[in-house]
Amino acid sequence: MSAPVTVYGPAISPAVARVAACLLEKDVPFQLEPVDMSKSEHKSPSFLKLQPFGQVPAFKDHLTTVFESRAICRYICDQYSDRGNRTLLGREEDGAVGRAAIEQWIESEGQAFNPPSLAIAFQLTFAPLMGRATDMAVVEQNEAKLAKVLDVYEQRLGDSQYFAGDEFTLADLVHMPNTELLASKTKTAGLITARKNLSRWWDEVSVRPSWKKVVELQSVPRPPRS
Amino acid sequence: MSAPVTVYGPAISPAVARVAACLLEKDVPFQLEPVDMSKSEHKSPSFLKLQPFGQVPAFKDHLTTVFESRAICRYICDQYSDRGNRTLLGREEDGAVGRAAIEQWIESEGQAFNPPSLAIAFQLTFAPLMGRATDMAVVEQNEAKLAKVLDVYEQRLGDSQYFAGDEFTLADLVHMPNTELLASKTKTAGLITARKNLSRWWDEVSVRPSWKKVVELQSVPRPPRS
Repeated sequence: MSAPVTVYGPAISPAVARVAACLLEKDVPFQLEPVDMSKSEHKSPSFLKLQPFGQVPAFKDHLTTVFESRAICRYICDQYSDRGNRTLLGREEDGAVGRAAIEQWIESEGQAFNPPSLAIAFQLTFAPLMGRATDMAVVEQNEAKLAKVLDVYEQRLGDSQYFAGDEFTLADLVHMPNTELLASKTKTAGLITARKNLSRWWDEVSVRPSWKKVVELQSVPRPPRS
Repeated sequence: MSAPVTVYGPAISPAVARVAACLLEKDVPFQLEPVDMSKSEHKSPSFLKLQPFGQVPAFKDHLTTVFESRAICRYICDQYSDRGNRTLLGREEDGAVGRAAIEQWIESEGQAFNPPSLAIAFQLTFAPLMGRATDMAVVEQNEAKLAKVLDVYEQRLGDSQYFAGDEFTLADLVHMPNTELLASKTKTAGLITARKNLSRWWDEVSVRPSWKKVVELQSVPRPPRS
């Protein structure tokens, strides 16, 4: 019998990887449904019913659909509160204050870290896959923006082991797909390795079994493009 | 006695206005503490302790500090669940599914709507206040991006009264500061008024007492800049 949870999109997409990592941390079985973006399947009427902006991932759990990777991650944590890692959104006894300590770094990921890091990843990883030229000026502009964000992170990760304190939470998890893309390219790996605390954090979080499984899903050879 | 909740920053900032609107909906007393950004007070060591990125708003509730406007709004809803509007993050009986229906539109606001609408507001509203020239090419590029997002919203608001269904929620509220800035400028008001459902939604939400109070806070004359 197939799992009730379906994630639509390729694991190489950072937003798909974010949701897959969360499901693996929470030990929620799921299936990954391919979406052939080269054939614009993500713009088809049936896909747009799941995801009105025509972006991956789309997500379905029984009859519930949710879009936007960070909203999907929150849903998984709230809906499956009794499964797998139970403290991704904080300990129940810490209440609203505990959750806010995590939410503020999830938001800083979405607002401050994601735009420049995704712009860099697009140029260095996805443009070549799509047969497009890399625009190095865009890479360098965004490296400068990202460096300011990483300086704040470096200080934070000197004060605490993880973004929100002593435990791995969704605040760490949401940062991982783009950090993997930065760390895997010679041109950008130094953004991480030059920062001692950030580097220590990445060494710790990237060996989690959930993340190793995501990287494995990403390396599965995809069918050749027609 | 002063209120325990303090919001640091000028009400004219969309992120400050977002938090103020949420506090007013929740009927949580607060004080607005000025931050003189022309004197770089938001980059001072004491401010950076509250908000490590040096952005407004910073937020304090007794001993709890939270940053990022959307994280602050979630905290206010969670912490003051028994005050004012009790369904901004959904009805308790609707659980994780009800909250996800709201969270997905909060995320689309942060990811899709905010970047182009804020870029436009910066050029048309804030650049002139700062004595800088308006870059009309930036306005037009971002109008094109924003139009695609608003087309999705137009369809959504044809299907339901509010973003997340039949009730006003945080999904609507987070969109209001930038929509106010678009609606208040002749150059961009048409982005709203040309869309029947979006226009109907804006007419409804912008007359809420909470929002009228935010607009009042924004229109308080500020001291002349030295």
